[in-house]
Amino acid sequence: MNPILEVFSQGEEIVTGQTVDTNAAWLSQQAVQLGFTVSRHTVVGDKLEDLVLLLNDIAQRADCCICTGGLGPTSDDLTAEAVANAFQRPLQFDESAYTQMKDYFANRNKSMPETNRKQALLPQGAERIDNDWGTAPGFALQQGRCWFAFLPGVPMEMRFMFTEKILPSMNNRFSLKPSQLIILRTIGMGESDIQERIKSVQISDSVQLGFRADTDEVQVKLLFASDYPETAIQALVSEIAAKLGDNVFSIDGQSEIVGDLVSVVDQLMRRSQHTLAVIETASQGLIAAKCINASWLLEAQYQQSFAKLMEKWAIQVDTGDPMSTAKAVAGLAQKNTQADLMLVQLYTGSEQHYSDKNQSITLFSVLLHDGHYQQAIHTIAGPVKRKQNQSALLALDLLRRYLQSVHFAQG
Amino acid sequence: MNPILEVFSQGEEIVTGQTVDTNAAWLSQQAVQLGFTVSRHTVVGDKLEDLVLLLNDIAQRADCCICTGGLGPTSDDLTAEAVANAFQRPLQFDESAYTQMKDYFANRNKSMPETNRKQALLPQGAERIDNDWGTAPGFALQQGRCWFAFLPGVPMEMRFMFTEKILPSMNNRFSLKPSQLIILRTIGMGESDIQERIKSVQISDSVQLGFRADTDEVQVKLLFASDYPETAIQALVSEIAAKLGDNVFSIDGQSEIVGDLVSVVDQLMRRSQHTLAVIETASQGLIAAKCINASWLLEAQYQQSFAKLMEKWAIQVDTGDPMSTAKAVAGLAQKNTQADLMLVQLYTGSEQHYSDKNQSITLFSVLLHDGHYQQAIHTIAGPVKRKQNQSALLALDLLRRYLQSVHFAQG
Repeated sequence: MNPILEVFSQGEEIVTGQTVDTNAAWLSQQAVQLGFTVSRHTVVGDKLEDLVLLLNDIAQRADCCICTGGLGPTSDDLTAEAVANAFQRPLQFDESAYTQMKDYFANRNKSMPETNRKQALLPQGAERIDNDWGTAPGFALQQGRCWFAFLPGVPMEMRFMFTEKILPSMNNRFSLKPSQLIILRTIGMGESDIQERIKSVQISDSVQLGFRADTDEVQVKLLFASDYPETAIQALVSEIAAKLGDNVFSIDGQSEIVGDLVSVVDQLMRRSQHTLAVIETASQGLIAAKCINASWLLEAQYQQSFAKLMEKWAIQVDTGDPMSTAKAVAGLAQKNTQADLMLVQLYTGSEQHYSDKNQSITLFSVLLHDGHYQQAIHTIAGPVKRKQNQSALLALDLLRRYLQSVHFAQG
Repeated sequence: MNPILEVFSQGEEIVTGQTVDTNAAWLSQQAVQLGFTVSRHTVVGDKLEDLVLLLNDIAQRADCCICTGGLGPTSDDLTAEAVANAFQRPLQFDESAYTQMKDYFANRNKSMPETNRKQALLPQGAERIDNDWGTAPGFALQQGRCWFAFLPGVPMEMRFMFTEKILPSMNNRFSLKPSQLIILRTIGMGESDIQERIKSVQISDSVQLGFRADTDEVQVKLLFASDYPETAIQALVSEIAAKLGDNVFSIDGQSEIVGDLVSVVDQLMRRSQHTLAVIETASQGLIAAKCINASWLLEAQYQQSFAKLMEKWAIQVDTGDPMSTAKAVAGLAQKNTQADLMLVQLYTGSEQHYSDKNQSITLFSVLLHDGHYQQAIHTIAGPVKRKQNQSALLALDLLRRYLQSVHFAQG
């Protein structure tokens, strides 16, 4: 039997529906992979008696509980107080938490407001969990049957703290049989296309097959029981990967280069020591923005007006062949940059086509390297933000396919 | 006292984190606006005993419960069975529900699979709620203190059924007093600074005050009871807004221009018919990317190397005074653009400072308009993505403050 885990989120903004509780889903995914059975999520607002009752219930029915939210400095942040009441553990001032908070503000040239002092009050016997990403420290304690960990509700802080501090603790405290999750990440095919391509593959009942389409990629997920033989895992993953071809850009849990598309591009660029300059249109800054902190991205330009872009590079507008235009722009722009790779993306379609979710635009992407061009054409539709995001991803994917072909070719 | 409402979602895919429970947030928003106090959300998976226990708990502590999911035709859809067990209401075959389902399939030239028959079994005494958008009918019943409504989990079906069938029922059954929510959206101050500034404001106990800090803004939320006088609402909101000064960029439910920072900037730019060009560094394309689909953003540039930027604009690097440098860049860059507003943001701090979450960088933002400069200095820290996002927001906020001061000055 797997240990039972519950997720508990505190916050009036969640219970009133102002915020969707994405923390619960994220934590549950982690917990399932670790080998827990997740039995329940509960959200309650800022009412002390509700919190106290719930904490007592959970202490009796779960082995582990991850709680998020309610650790802030304001009067509606009641988690520590609720724990103190529920478990008869009076709040105590934690000198070290207080010092860390003061340092946090000092680093930002600010003095700490007196209200933050409250965040240094922890229930008696609780273990402090330092927060390197914000002011609120978390804490953990064993009560009754259940080990509780309390984390801030801000998703980024919560995720970092869970991964770096809670996860190792959970592995020590519980005897877990983690199932193995392999994720093939793809771009360029829809979920039903993928299903069609792999339907001939024999998959055992002890493997859980799932698909997840999000805005940036389509994932094929394989969850293997802890006793599934490693060689059989390898064989199945390879067979599926082969069916999907170079639409697969990384395989979490298997390939050397892992992560999302941007992270794969980043790793490939660092290894190959290329540098890049970008001219973007439909993506409006998002290609550059996605590559944040990449030392290989030397410069990027967004130009709204096609005419202005042509004027800048002294090109005759060739409306008949946008791909030739994109190539001409890339060739000329490369003369003005120190980057050895030049990525240019133009599109056809009016402002109206771009804005209207029911209309489409066509992207012409060009990558210039050593005098050679890689190119791709895509027609995309949907709301503006989706068009923007797809444009940026497809441009980066052209770069990824080039880099991976070179990388794999060199062994 | 408002009646107490709970939201209950059933589904293994939610409890394991494969699906984020957006239904709960949507339903809670509707309920709060109607005049309920939403006290709790609960998610449980496909375990009959968990469902039975939970239903009994809710029947004792809530006045109304909206349940979603678990009404499908497969064996893991257990809601009706759980209700039957929990409340001693044996399942009964509903002829009319069955006929409707057969018609649904017949309409699509399909014959109904025998498994769907299960969906016509409803707990004794339940009122059937027809589903005009799918196969699963919902149902409603009074048990103990609580009126329960059971709806399918598919968001579109759930929303239609709630709006057209449940909502009128709720208005009939409960004596509801809809409350009014006012949200002041701010940038430039932390949650605790805000609390400090408004602590002298007298706020009646019948007003619920809340704070919400997300990555892009800090919100001050005021929930007024239905009988709170409109003039008193106006007075309180104005008093709080005055304390927070121009850190408030919009007031949902009050100001003419509403929404998040980018949307406020967009509305102000459209009204004032300005156009903008941007040079960004720390935000790396994100200023442009956030302004997606803005016809007023003519161009944007990102340059990694400070030296290259100086070279491009033929400026002597003046390390002693980055603000003067930013102004010089703005002045020269404006000569090369048709935009009448020029926004430039530079920063001091090494690549190391930028990458390290524990180190800070200092932003120097300049807005040039009609030969005049607006400027702002901010020191920011945190992980790279946070630095990037803050940089973009603070640059856009400089623009917002300028536009709003002009807009308000003109009446």
